[in-house]
Amino acid sequence: MSPTSEGTAGGKIHRFPVRVYYEDTDFSGFVYHASYLRFMERGRSEFLRICGIGHQMLLQLREPLFWTVRSISIKFIRPAGIEDALTVHTRVAEIGGARMFLEQRIERDGEELTRADVEVCVISGAGRPRRIPETVRERMAIYPRSADNPAGSQGELDA
Amino acid sequence: MSPTSEGTAGGKIHRFPVRVYYEDTDFSGFVYHASYLRFMERGRSEFLRICGIGHQMLLQLREPLFWTVRSISIKFIRPAGIEDALTVHTRVAEIGGARMFLEQRIERDGEELTRADVEVCVISGAGRPRRIPETVRERMAIYPRSADNPAGSQGELDA
Amino acid sequence: MSPTSEGTAGGKIHRFPVRVYYEDTDFSGFVYHASYLRFMERGRSEFLRICGIGHQMLLQLREPLFWTVRSISIKFIRPAGIEDALTVHTRVAEIGGARMFLEQRIERDGEELTRADVEVCVISGAGRPRRIPETVRERMAIYPRSADNPAGSQGELDA
Amino acid sequence: MSPTSEGTAGGKIHRFPVRVYYEDTDFSGFVYHASYLRFMERGRSEFLRICGIGHQMLLQLREPLFWTVRSISIKFIRPAGIEDALTVHTRVAEIGGARMFLEQRIERDGEELTRADVEVCVISGAGRPRRIPETVRERMAIYPRSADNPAGSQGELDA
Repeated sequence: MSPTSEGTAGGKIHRFPVRVYYEDTDFSGFVYHASYLRFMERGRSEFLRICGIGHQMLLQLREPLFWTVRSISIKFIRPAGIEDALTVHTRVAEIGGARMFLEQRIERDGEELTRADVEVCVISGAGRPRRIPETVRERMAIYPRSADNPAGSQGELDA
Repeated sequence: MSPTSEGTAGGKIHRFPVRVYYEDTDFSGFVYHASYLRFMERGRSEFLRICGIGHQMLLQLREPLFWTVRSISIKFIRPAGIEDALTVHTRVAEIGGARMFLEQRIERDGEELTRADVEVCVISGAGRPRRIPETVRERMAIYPRSADNPAGSQGELDA
Repeated sequence: MSPTSEGTAGGKIHRFPVRVYYEDTDFSGFVYHASYLRFMERGRSEFLRICGIGHQMLLQLREPLFWTVRSISIKFIRPAGIEDALTVHTRVAEIGGARMFLEQRIERDGEELTRADVEVCVISGAGRPRRIPETVRERMAIYPRSADNPAGSQGELDA
Repeated sequence: MSPTSEGTAGGKIHRFPVRVYYEDTDFSGFVYHASYLRFMERGRSEFLRICGIGHQMLLQLREPLFWTVRSISIKFIRPAGIEDALTVHTRVAEIGGARMFLEQRIERDGEELTRADVEVCVISGAGRPRRIPETVRERMAIYPRSADNPAGSQGELDA
């Protein structure tokens, strides 16, 4: 199986806990819709970091690169409220040469609140699209590298 | 043609100016992806307010109601940067009994940066879905009511 | 010493970990200044929740109440960057009948990045100031109640 | 009187309109406290831009610079709500070699909601403090330059 196939990457789900704070809610009493995108971005960032290909790592490449979102299709199913304990689930569906497709959902006590298909790619500091570096694709395939995952709140990976 | 058909509603485009500030950007140097959702929500809010069915009006109904987003499908085409002058374009594609579908895009100097299909509905204070009130559907159909549009930064409606 | 004196409350420091994400940064490459206020609010919320007087608890009083900020004096000493692991330190300096004064700071590896004096009070749903309920003052004095602290990411309290 | 004295700079007040949107509110029903800092930052950015020393201008200096906040002391006096039309007032109190002090307040229909003393300075891309460039201090003193103020939503300057 090729190291960048979705078979490997897609087989594991990253789970990351998020607590709902004041800043995430709006005057309806529930979580503001764009806050779920922030939660999902945290899930993706921790997932990438656990794989050793986080933002700092990309900044240190010969040409500094940035993960960026190309498209999101998101459904808001049930509302979350203040102090709710949520879990962001992240799974890689597919990695190509220039794009990565992820499936994400946010749950509360096992109940699905939000679900999204997310397409990300990498850009240069000038905003130009770049191919996903081979080292990134390789690390993606064999995650998590324990050396890159010494400690912290980066969530957990399950089969 | 019925007053709530998308023919009427869909015939006009609401344009709303947005300036990019510090708060909207991220460390890549460009606008953070979820900020575009905030910009689009501002465009929708001004559009609804120009039609006389803004948030304050919905709060004053016998049963207070809130606009909420059910789904968004969004493409990020080109990045925006600090101080850029953007325009949010909003058009109603369809209004049903319980849902409204809008097409939105964000432009800079006529160039499309972001494009989204947005589905919104109304909920009660307890988060329960409600039918879109008839008064709301009616005002939508005959917008803009000049009495509801005395002044301010609410953008403009064009054929 | 009275159970609501600052002596008791002031003797313990609540520590809460925060990771810097994309959403927290701006185009300067560092954390956006208002994001530190969000971090501090998270620290206060977890601290109050660990004491059994979080937002949900206040909503369930006979007259629902909300914590609100009356004033902040904040110094931004050193900048934080993407993926930095920060710690929010929160200490109650004084509790009066209508106001609570907290000292907060944000550190990275023991280095102080930001420091603030924060004054909070409670308001009704209509935005009217209210006295801090006696139950809230009592729980503050004897925190943490283990029954209110079953699990989660609420940080830790040290002498 | 020297062109960079606070006498000149301090004599004018910049007024900038802000509408309260969904994103700015929280579950208390009012504006989230950190949102007022975002509003004030917009006021400062438009004020600096009207003077010809906005963010883009600073990025184009030989050594690219960024405005950054060193300290804020802010009082939250009355709450704002959804759709409220606010005005951000900005006045330069003093400009030194490395720091600028501003007085800002947010009003609704002439009623003061929030008031702040803000200290800003400039940093390099590496986060190092720099002296405020002489061109910046000069433009500050003779603002607004009409050439830098062709159009847009940048508010107005009054004596």
